[in-house]
Amino acid sequence: MTFRAPHLLGIEHLGQDEITALIDLADRYAEDNRRGVAHRDVLAGLTQINMFFENSTRTQASFELAGQRLGADVMNMGIASSSVKKGETLIDTALTLNAMRPDLLVVRHPNSGAVDLLAQKVNCAVLNAGDGRHEHPTQALLDALTIRRAKVRLHRLSIAICGDIAHSRVARSNIMLLGKMENRVRLIAPPTLMPSGVADFGVEVFDDMREGLRDVDVVMMLRLQKERMDGGFIPSEREYFHRYGLDAEKLAHAKPDAIVMHPGPMNRGVEIDGTLADDINRSVIQEQVEMGVAVRMAAMDMLARNLREARKAGAVPA
Amino acid sequence: MTFRAPHLLGIEHLGQDEITALIDLADRYAEDNRRGVAHRDVLAGLTQINMFFENSTRTQASFELAGQRLGADVMNMGIASSSVKKGETLIDTALTLNAMRPDLLVVRHPNSGAVDLLAQKVNCAVLNAGDGRHEHPTQALLDALTIRRAKVRLHRLSIAICGDIAHSRVARSNIMLLGKMENRVRLIAPPTLMPSGVADFGVEVFDDMREGLRDVDVVMMLRLQKERMDGGFIPSEREYFHRYGLDAEKLAHAKPDAIVMHPGPMNRGVEIDGTLADDINRSVIQEQVEMGVAVRMAAMDMLARNLREARKAGAVPA
Amino acid sequence: MTFRAPHLLGIEHLGQDEITALIDLADRYAEDNRRGVAHRDVLAGLTQINMFFENSTRTQASFELAGQRLGADVMNMGIASSSVKKGETLIDTALTLNAMRPDLLVVRHPNSGAVDLLAQKVNCAVLNAGDGRHEHPTQALLDALTIRRAKVRLHRLSIAICGDIAHSRVARSNIMLLGKMENRVRLIAPPTLMPSGVADFGVEVFDDMREGLRDVDVVMMLRLQKERMDGGFIPSEREYFHRYGLDAEKLAHAKPDAIVMHPGPMNRGVEIDGTLADDINRSVIQEQVEMGVAVRMAAMDMLARNLREARKAGAVPA
Repeated sequence: MTFRAPHLLGIEHLGQDEITALIDLADRYAEDNRRGVAHRDVLAGLTQINMFFENSTRTQASFELAGQRLGADVMNMGIASSSVKKGETLIDTALTLNAMRPDLLVVRHPNSGAVDLLAQKVNCAVLNAGDGRHEHPTQALLDALTIRRAKVRLHRLSIAICGDIAHSRVARSNIMLLGKMENRVRLIAPPTLMPSGVADFGVEVFDDMREGLRDVDVVMMLRLQKERMDGGFIPSEREYFHRYGLDAEKLAHAKPDAIVMHPGPMNRGVEIDGTLADDINRSVIQEQVEMGVAVRMAAMDMLARNLREARKAGAVPA
Repeated sequence: MTFRAPHLLGIEHLGQDEITALIDLADRYAEDNRRGVAHRDVLAGLTQINMFFENSTRTQASFELAGQRLGADVMNMGIASSSVKKGETLIDTALTLNAMRPDLLVVRHPNSGAVDLLAQKVNCAVLNAGDGRHEHPTQALLDALTIRRAKVRLHRLSIAICGDIAHSRVARSNIMLLGKMENRVRLIAPPTLMPSGVADFGVEVFDDMREGLRDVDVVMMLRLQKERMDGGFIPSEREYFHRYGLDAEKLAHAKPDAIVMHPGPMNRGVEIDGTLADDINRSVIQEQVEMGVAVRMAAMDMLARNLREARKAGAVPA
Repeated sequence: MTFRAPHLLGIEHLGQDEITALIDLADRYAEDNRRGVAHRDVLAGLTQINMFFENSTRTQASFELAGQRLGADVMNMGIASSSVKKGETLIDTALTLNAMRPDLLVVRHPNSGAVDLLAQKVNCAVLNAGDGRHEHPTQALLDALTIRRAKVRLHRLSIAICGDIAHSRVARSNIMLLGKMENRVRLIAPPTLMPSGVADFGVEVFDDMREGLRDVDVVMMLRLQKERMDGGFIPSEREYFHRYGLDAEKLAHAKPDAIVMHPGPMNRGVEIDGTLADDINRSVIQEQVEMGVAVRMAAMDMLARNLREARKAGAVPA
């Protein structure tokens, strides 16, 4: 048991051994999911609350299915029906939920850092399901598991992350995870969508796709986050696809067996050519979704174990 | 076991024996529901996802209760929280859900044919909960069960379907089912709400209620689908009720023991007189709702059996 | 067994013995919740439907968790997805749900009396989760349990209810419950937010906080219901806080060990000073939330017992 954290707030706080422990367990859950082997005792009697202050069909569904498969009672709290509208603060919402004694709190929030803040106020395990432009740790973990299953290893790979890096918590969490696991990470983006200071993360920076993709093992495309571009540069979709959209021609610069990833939901014909996205010889996009459920099962399993031990030790109220 | 389909997409694809098998099983579930006999093992360990791209309280609730009573894990995905808003295509949404390995997918969609399309892309059993003006098979099946319970048989009956036939998938599925079971179907509607080409279905067409209702065994009223009338003729409610609304006087032209049906939600005083709707000697409207849960239990039970066999045979991925 | 009602519609209908029985059972559930003792057999096999015609995160979540902890199948029906939008009447919605054979119906509705009306039409147990300005019985019960746990007794206490009394069902239910249990109730509000006729309830009326709070054991603050103030007087928040907001200075007029309550969601700096709200030596606001789950467990447990007996006796359809 090498996963020590009481919460899963970000890749930033995880060591190599913790990442490996999580992915190993997720891999076993993925196989059992395929074989229809149930594990409904793992979270039996525990309450999981999904607090989504930002809509996300796929992530919420993934966490909900993960919890159900492990036997948790799962409750969804959508933003629309939330007291936030009545002027309640995030902290009051957190304290209120905490008083209802949940065990696992899955939180998505539009503000960077909101989930960390919330975690300080509650007695249960908190999972960050994406906060602003900050972190999306389960996405990075499911990407890592998908890569390891395709490439057999998760180190000394050359991985290109392409597109709207400036607005992407997916990119941020992935850069950290892939760096910690000792891979070579390249970022490819138009200058306006490349955040400043990325060099600190030990990555290589490109603004030309063909150059950036040369001989990489993995091509990780990002969603164009139009909804987060406030006022500034919004490229035309056609121009964007021409220069930064992934198609067979650009992909030819990567290794012949390079895999193609996308966190979804995809803008076909903008970030990625639709035919390539569906090419099961290159694209692992559906596998990413499948691994998402398995990774969330693993993360909730490990946090629940830590929570039970902390409660037994009296470190947090039962 | 005479129900062979991997999906339940429409009445169009069902044979007489399949319809009878479904209704027989549903009838047994209806009785067990009344007696409080549980069947939570039937779908235990299976995941049911309700994907409603169009709101519907009653149909979604009916499918959700049916799944819960059979022990399924049920997940609701409302349109409001859907990635569709982020520009994802129906097919990508389907592929994403499919990758999460659900067993039963219940889909409602505003576009005719959308559910068939989706069913081609997934490895699980798909149930059409209504697609555009196309089909609503569980509604036709619950109507059939309700009729059979009231009239003891489901053949050689004279059945009038009245109202907004042009916009109604309920009418379409019912016309097919009742025809397959060898009943005499009459359609009664103002000319503007009568679709062209209905004569091909072997039905009789009327635009006068009293004439159309003469000596029928069953009067099936339809909801006036104002929300689907785009631009064209919208009758005044008062005028509509005067000519096509069902009241005691018009009903007097049917057989003395004719039953009154409505798929709900009702516009009282528009399609049907409120007092008549509540008259338990004539109206079986509440029984329709009750049979709805039983029919959906039967349909999901049968599809789950077929799915398990197909998986065992290796015809679809486990 | 001294709880006799088939429904929980309001405090108005409860006797002292019933209130005590509910609170006693809730207290045992609260302790078992803290110790992680499960009671999933209590509502196993029963269906609970939460019908919220008015949004409320905390109350709906509380009822949902209570049902899950007792093993019920819980289904949420939000207003947004409701047929109400299609013009269906409340009664038709009730009849439709009733035909699906739920066991427990939890209802919140913006109109006073709507829940009573609905209860007359169904064969299951109905719990009022708040109707207009009328009643919110589980809130009064959880407040009572919170008070009894803090003050050891629930009679001969002096309790001040402060703020927007005119728009508050919370105040109304609490006034009745606290009166029935033989406490001295004081109401403190600006004249425009004090309903007429309150003197009939045997309460004392104040418009000055310091005077009203003198020597009370319990200070119960109310939420300023701006969303229910139609047209009339809306005080400025700053002025309101100055005169009626609870802070340490005003609280000093109460007994030294007086507790501070608020039903939430709070407007910090309007009804109550934020620091005081968080002061665990005075504020029992989080405990109120915790007791909310326990009280709803107790109420549903008792109603389910009564329902089962009524069904066994043939008084209601099984």
